[in-house]
Amino acid sequence: MSEAREYCGLFGVYGCEDAAERVYYGLYSLQHRGEESAGIASTDGKDIVSHKGMGLVNDVIKPQTLKSLKNPIAIGHVRYSTIGSSNLGNAQPLVVDYYKGKVAVAHNGQLTNAKKLREEFEANGSIFHTTSDTEVIVHLMAKPLHMMQKNLSLLLQQLRGSFSLLFLTPDEMVGVRDPHGFRPLALGRLNTGYVLASETCAMDQVGAEYLRDINPGEAVYINKEGIRSEYYCSPKHIKPAFCIFELVYFSRPDSKIYGESVHLFRKKLGAKLAAESPVDADVVISVPEGGNSAAIGYSHASGIPFDRGFIRNHYVGRTFILPEQDRRHRVVELKLNALKETVEGKRVIVIDDSIVRGTTSKSRFSLLRKAGAKEIHVRISCPPHRYPCYYGIDFQQKGELIAASHTVEEIRQFLHVESLSYLSVNGMMSCTTQPRQHFCNACFTSDYPTSIDEETKKLTEKKPVSAEKNI
Amino acid sequence: MSEAREYCGLFGVYGCEDAAERVYYGLYSLQHRGEESAGIASTDGKDIVSHKGMGLVNDVIKPQTLKSLKNPIAIGHVRYSTIGSSNLGNAQPLVVDYYKGKVAVAHNGQLTNAKKLREEFEANGSIFHTTSDTEVIVHLMAKPLHMMQKNLSLLLQQLRGSFSLLFLTPDEMVGVRDPHGFRPLALGRLNTGYVLASETCAMDQVGAEYLRDINPGEAVYINKEGIRSEYYCSPKHIKPAFCIFELVYFSRPDSKIYGESVHLFRKKLGAKLAAESPVDADVVISVPEGGNSAAIGYSHASGIPFDRGFIRNHYVGRTFILPEQDRRHRVVELKLNALKETVEGKRVIVIDDSIVRGTTSKSRFSLLRKAGAKEIHVRISCPPHRYPCYYGIDFQQKGELIAASHTVEEIRQFLHVESLSYLSVNGMMSCTTQPRQHFCNACFTSDYPTSIDEETKKLTEKKPVSAEKNI
Amino acid sequence: MSEAREYCGLFGVYGCEDAAERVYYGLYSLQHRGEESAGIASTDGKDIVSHKGMGLVNDVIKPQTLKSLKNPIAIGHVRYSTIGSSNLGNAQPLVVDYYKGKVAVAHNGQLTNAKKLREEFEANGSIFHTTSDTEVIVHLMAKPLHMMQKNLSLLLQQLRGSFSLLFLTPDEMVGVRDPHGFRPLALGRLNTGYVLASETCAMDQVGAEYLRDINPGEAVYINKEGIRSEYYCSPKHIKPAFCIFELVYFSRPDSKIYGESVHLFRKKLGAKLAAESPVDADVVISVPEGGNSAAIGYSHASGIPFDRGFIRNHYVGRTFILPEQDRRHRVVELKLNALKETVEGKRVIVIDDSIVRGTTSKSRFSLLRKAGAKEIHVRISCPPHRYPCYYGIDFQQKGELIAASHTVEEIRQFLHVESLSYLSVNGMMSCTTQPRQHFCNACFTSDYPTSIDEETKKLTEKKPVSAEKNI
Amino acid sequence: MSEAREYCGLFGVYGCEDAAERVYYGLYSLQHRGEESAGIASTDGKDIVSHKGMGLVNDVIKPQTLKSLKNPIAIGHVRYSTIGSSNLGNAQPLVVDYYKGKVAVAHNGQLTNAKKLREEFEANGSIFHTTSDTEVIVHLMAKPLHMMQKNLSLLLQQLRGSFSLLFLTPDEMVGVRDPHGFRPLALGRLNTGYVLASETCAMDQVGAEYLRDINPGEAVYINKEGIRSEYYCSPKHIKPAFCIFELVYFSRPDSKIYGESVHLFRKKLGAKLAAESPVDADVVISVPEGGNSAAIGYSHASGIPFDRGFIRNHYVGRTFILPEQDRRHRVVELKLNALKETVEGKRVIVIDDSIVRGTTSKSRFSLLRKAGAKEIHVRISCPPHRYPCYYGIDFQQKGELIAASHTVEEIRQFLHVESLSYLSVNGMMSCTTQPRQHFCNACFTSDYPTSIDEETKKLTEKKPVSAEKNI
Repeated sequence: MSEAREYCGLFGVYGCEDAAERVYYGLYSLQHRGEESAGIASTDGKDIVSHKGMGLVNDVIKPQTLKSLKNPIAIGHVRYSTIGSSNLGNAQPLVVDYYKGKVAVAHNGQLTNAKKLREEFEANGSIFHTTSDTEVIVHLMAKPLHMMQKNLSLLLQQLRGSFSLLFLTPDEMVGVRDPHGFRPLALGRLNTGYVLASETCAMDQVGAEYLRDINPGEAVYINKEGIRSEYYCSPKHIKPAFCIFELVYFSRPDSKIYGESVHLFRKKLGAKLAAESPVDADVVISVPEGGNSAAIGYSHASGIPFDRGFIRNHYVGRTFILPEQDRRHRVVELKLNALKETVEGKRVIVIDDSIVRGTTSKSRFSLLRKAGAKEIHVRISCPPHRYPCYYGIDFQQKGELIAASHTVEEIRQFLHVESLSYLSVNGMMSCTTQPRQHFCNACFTSDYPTSIDEETKKLTEKKPVSAEKNI
Repeated sequence: MSEAREYCGLFGVYGCEDAAERVYYGLYSLQHRGEESAGIASTDGKDIVSHKGMGLVNDVIKPQTLKSLKNPIAIGHVRYSTIGSSNLGNAQPLVVDYYKGKVAVAHNGQLTNAKKLREEFEANGSIFHTTSDTEVIVHLMAKPLHMMQKNLSLLLQQLRGSFSLLFLTPDEMVGVRDPHGFRPLALGRLNTGYVLASETCAMDQVGAEYLRDINPGEAVYINKEGIRSEYYCSPKHIKPAFCIFELVYFSRPDSKIYGESVHLFRKKLGAKLAAESPVDADVVISVPEGGNSAAIGYSHASGIPFDRGFIRNHYVGRTFILPEQDRRHRVVELKLNALKETVEGKRVIVIDDSIVRGTTSKSRFSLLRKAGAKEIHVRISCPPHRYPCYYGIDFQQKGELIAASHTVEEIRQFLHVESLSYLSVNGMMSCTTQPRQHFCNACFTSDYPTSIDEETKKLTEKKPVSAEKNI
Repeated sequence: MSEAREYCGLFGVYGCEDAAERVYYGLYSLQHRGEESAGIASTDGKDIVSHKGMGLVNDVIKPQTLKSLKNPIAIGHVRYSTIGSSNLGNAQPLVVDYYKGKVAVAHNGQLTNAKKLREEFEANGSIFHTTSDTEVIVHLMAKPLHMMQKNLSLLLQQLRGSFSLLFLTPDEMVGVRDPHGFRPLALGRLNTGYVLASETCAMDQVGAEYLRDINPGEAVYINKEGIRSEYYCSPKHIKPAFCIFELVYFSRPDSKIYGESVHLFRKKLGAKLAAESPVDADVVISVPEGGNSAAIGYSHASGIPFDRGFIRNHYVGRTFILPEQDRRHRVVELKLNALKETVEGKRVIVIDDSIVRGTTSKSRFSLLRKAGAKEIHVRISCPPHRYPCYYGIDFQQKGELIAASHTVEEIRQFLHVESLSYLSVNGMMSCTTQPRQHFCNACFTSDYPTSIDEETKKLTEKKPVSAEKNI
Repeated sequence: MSEAREYCGLFGVYGCEDAAERVYYGLYSLQHRGEESAGIASTDGKDIVSHKGMGLVNDVIKPQTLKSLKNPIAIGHVRYSTIGSSNLGNAQPLVVDYYKGKVAVAHNGQLTNAKKLREEFEANGSIFHTTSDTEVIVHLMAKPLHMMQKNLSLLLQQLRGSFSLLFLTPDEMVGVRDPHGFRPLALGRLNTGYVLASETCAMDQVGAEYLRDINPGEAVYINKEGIRSEYYCSPKHIKPAFCIFELVYFSRPDSKIYGESVHLFRKKLGAKLAAESPVDADVVISVPEGGNSAAIGYSHASGIPFDRGFIRNHYVGRTFILPEQDRRHRVVELKLNALKETVEGKRVIVIDDSIVRGTTSKSRFSLLRKAGAKEIHVRISCPPHRYPCYYGIDFQQKGELIAASHTVEEIRQFLHVESLSYLSVNGMMSCTTQPRQHFCNACFTSDYPTSIDEETKKLTEKKPVSAEKNI
């Protein structure tokens, strides 16, 4: 069963004295893309060695691990926590032996035809060790027909859905992006070598220079003969559908995603929000960290001063890693404290980047009320989330997204705030510098850029756990 | 040897169904005051049980620990990391048996006569298990003369230097502040019981209400007969000398310290800095987290817009816990990334709360330069640190405080920035709402409020490790 | 590469309220057959759950693990430590998904055609996750042709070499022994259910009753319809070649192996040794534990009194698990101490079950000399080991077996003892109650019961690590 | 409260390049004397460093620990597991600072006046960190009067009860035995240095040569001027009362205790038992390991052949370390398996060294019955234990020693065996080579060599846990 939604971070380095150490630091910068497991595979040109484990990069990769992985080519992966598929077997990179030797693969995305491919393989006698989509990819890779090819084109043409991929063989590193470019993947230069990264902030970390994004439908082969770009599908199949949610919510503000500065984009969201939903107030605050950039944009556009309204306890981990549901409320309080001096007696505009189930938001806004806020005006820097994602973002099942079943007014009442506005879809899309039809915004609009079969829909609806981000 | 500088956090709860759990959450909020060790002692009215360990509160105190500590009265302690004294034996609360039974003690501060007292005790046949000042206090407590007293006055009169203290016996919790009030200690109400905390942010955490500070020279006894306040020394010995550094740097912005809002105080520092050292620029940014409040104050006062110039990686721990010095630079880069979109081609004002050795600051400002900043104007929200603290703050040894041996111009050149200004002492002191003579600012001015013997000076100068804060 | 020699222990339980717990205790009794890794897989009739890990049964399987494995059918495995293949991926049972659902497999033995089969699979597009022979077996199992069969016969006919196997599917447990019966596998009854075990001592442990051995070439299918026996190959291919080394050395003395009591067999070896190599002496001692049974046999047959000559430190683990070679000598001394009171001034006969490299033996006999032994007469209860095993016992590479390159007289001189005798091959074989042609004694005689191809020979000679037993 | 009975092992090394490593190996040999905690303190002539922890020597002391302890003088300690006092604070050596500097102390025994001394100290203002007797000793040591002495005589004269002690100061190692010599302590030579050890087997381990026992009432001071012996009390107070239980039961068979070979002594016990309680039988077996030496003695004296009747699983730890009482029976079965081939249809004599509560013995003998033994004749190599020990052996509380409340015939019936005999007191005492009045055998006879006050009796009777040995 393709139960694992692969929301993840990728980082690869080719041609650097200690590629694995760079990958380690790169994954550190991408940790927000996956806290469940981490792994690195590297090669000396002959063999591939790897190390994977459950937990943060820092817990999994130790100095002695890096020593054993010291090689000039390496790829790494961090994986998102989703209960049910949370086991070491699903950690990546996946490293296997096949006819041509060893290969390591790391995947960010979700195949919509994984189940079908897996059933075909099993009917033909294949065995599966994991529940991850990625194992399907290596089975495809090992198909005699595919092995005869000089490149991965035939194999990649079999895949449907979203996939940014890194392949590592003893003599080559390959970076791939699906024909829609759902998930990001960027190319950079590091001295005389190259890096591939889900986000550019990881390039900054290791001192690499951003060159360009891998294009939708493109595979980039990096080996001792240099770098070679190939499109594995015909131009007519290439239809950009970049995930807008990366920009709105998930990526780090210091990254460039699809060539767009995340911080600037979010400031624009805030400014647009000020234009769409102005309100007379004394101060603009944000729910850290997600709302910070948009709040500054809102403040600059509205002229209402920005101040700190919440102080965050930096020792608190993400709430969803706690086992007991009844401790959740406790933890919310542990993370943020309201700043009475900023909000007491004031009309407060609070900027956040999302409301998922609403319970966390409600408890936070109630902290402001207790601290004496006279009026609370909530402004969300994107439209309401109403629809599931089939391309790798692990939302709540539909029933739990509060906006899927409630009007904005109902949500406002639930939150006990004076006003609540979301940014409009048009407002959001107007903040990009690229053609808006190049984006997938289906989670807000249900305009899915590919057809989704019933099987996949069912899988997604069964998902028991949330992706509520709480950086 | 009194080698351990006790810079720490205290939290106590009297009269609450599960006092230990509240103490746990309280310590969580005070974690920034000490990351080396944590401990809780609690009592059911008969016996005292305790648990201590090296590491963060979260690592030391587990659900099963809390279960074993479940009692209506509890005190807790977090301790600062200083290499050399880093061992479990020095963790607190210190729990011992003496003639009257068991007692637990937690201490924040530094006794200037600890060595002398210890030598006297040893000459009289006492043995010491730890190197901590706190053990001297329990030896004093167990002195036959002191045991005959109804209160702790006679014992407390023996102590010199800085001490905020919590005592726990099976039937009483006591909070004490030294006659100068060097370290903070506040009293709060929690339902029908009481809490004592180093900072008020910990009261917010557990839902307690701040009542007032414990006064210099005051001891507060809380038992089943209620709460009783006593001054253990004569009024002429009470000379407030509140540590200004708590406000400037160490406490959380959402705390009230000495009745003063830390966030507001720091905003005032920023505003004053704008008045004292204006500069024509495009944007004001801060070095997070320490510079955040002052940067907002600077921006509001100067009218120059505030924006995010650095993005922090929230997965990185404090740098000084890493064992290998040569990895330090690496870690600095791991923690902060410059936001090119904010600074490129701009004249940038950067607000920070301190420069200690200068190396970390230098590497951070160079990130701005690499990101394209045209001009970098550094503004520090306090005066240069030039003198050691003998009351519990663990600075660099004098030789390593860059301002102790360099002029501001020399530091500016070292940092490679266009301009550098520190806030003046007068500017800083003008931001308090209390008489400025009630503060100790000796680390900036060398006006020590007590006489310091040569022994203590020597000890402080030998200190090998820094207190560079990196929240 | 089939680098892992599978010397292991198997235990399976069908039809018992908590089969996994029984398997746990059974594996405990088989721990001497493999200390590297342990694992259990169990089924509730629908799904298969499993847990594996590096280390002793006790370290890998915890109470909470057993809780999660609580099911009426379970199989388990312990694996021998051989450096190079020592990783979690090779731990067993191997659990995979294939067309018919989940299956778990546990293997004791070594396939001589594993490399060939693997190459065929890879050429046809299969991928391999481990370096273990066992993965070849599950690939065979998943072959469409084999899946169409009602039983495993077609699959099992593909295997060459030694294999005792346990299969677990959600509705069936299967036990298999290769046509030569190289490795043991016995069937027992546990209340209304069945057990399968490498050694009968494990049946005693769980209160099961030994019924009979699985026969060479037999597969036993146990499911809700009862137990069904099938021979998967024609009688002409069934040629018993039971490993004599199990009896001589590896199995526990309280087991019945091939229907033979190990303790009685070893006592007979001792008696035969007394007949073949008598010597006038004062006392018979053994090198514990291996020499204990034979020493008693020698003493009874010779009339020379048996006494304790070595005392063993029971806290010492097996020596080969220590990482640093230079600590090896140290550890040998840690394990045994000579008993001066038994040997001082005496002519001592020492019985041991083997001499591998000779260095350990030498250091032990020198302890006797230091303790004052006047004469040391070493008697080994089997012939010299001269040849590699291709059926699953992991000896030294040939160059390191001292008897492979030295005469008995040379070994005696190396050991610095007065006399040294090995038991003759005829003597050894005469101690069995079965036809001697039913045994494989190739490690003593080089009479291999199957043809060994050059590939396999090379693999064996490359083996870097010893099987020196040090229970 | 002096709740901790100090049954322990001591090892000290003076004048050896890496004394701590030798101590580590020495403690390894003494592990049977204490499994709860282990610790080593060492000195370079200036400072004392130490490391202690809960668990086996091997778990507590790691290579890096030894590195940090590398010094020419070191002492070590292993401590027995007794629930209630099982905490790190009570681990030894106890290291404290006092007027003269640092001192480390390790103690084997039990002070009968610890409570009284502790109360005196507390009344005079002393504080206690632990519940161990040993802390009383260091308080005595630090008394001004005692510090003025050149030696420890005055201090040692204050102690009552049993105590073998090691003291370590930066320039001296001291070994002490109480005036009765209850617990053993031996002196050895190691190259140009000295060792002190509870048992001589530890000397064999490190290559040291046994010189002599420390005498009752003697203190041996070892420093750079050599070795100096002093008696700290007058001859009239010296009354040897060596614990016979060390010889019968607790010490390793390869040790010399009180100059007596433990193995030979136990063989004599067996021979005496054969003479006192002969029975017509087919085979003599032992309950390993405790009964092994005596069984050989019985066999030699009676002419009835010795054979192995039980096989022990060497992977099983001591049963009493398991937390859950209901798993106890399970574990007993895990440890021993009966050898059917030895006992089936036979009249079996079983030799053991003790019966404590009787339940473990009963379950073991039932294994023999299940294995087909026709008759079971139990012979215990000492008299029935009926009385508590006040000198450091931690028996059951009186109510749980089966022999304290049952006749031998009742015990026989409880065990379901054909016959049961204990060795007589006279028989046991006749096996020593020293005057029998030099021994304490009060646990068999209630002839206590010192007066025991009611307080101590009460303490002992409250002890909740058993000392049932299960090596």
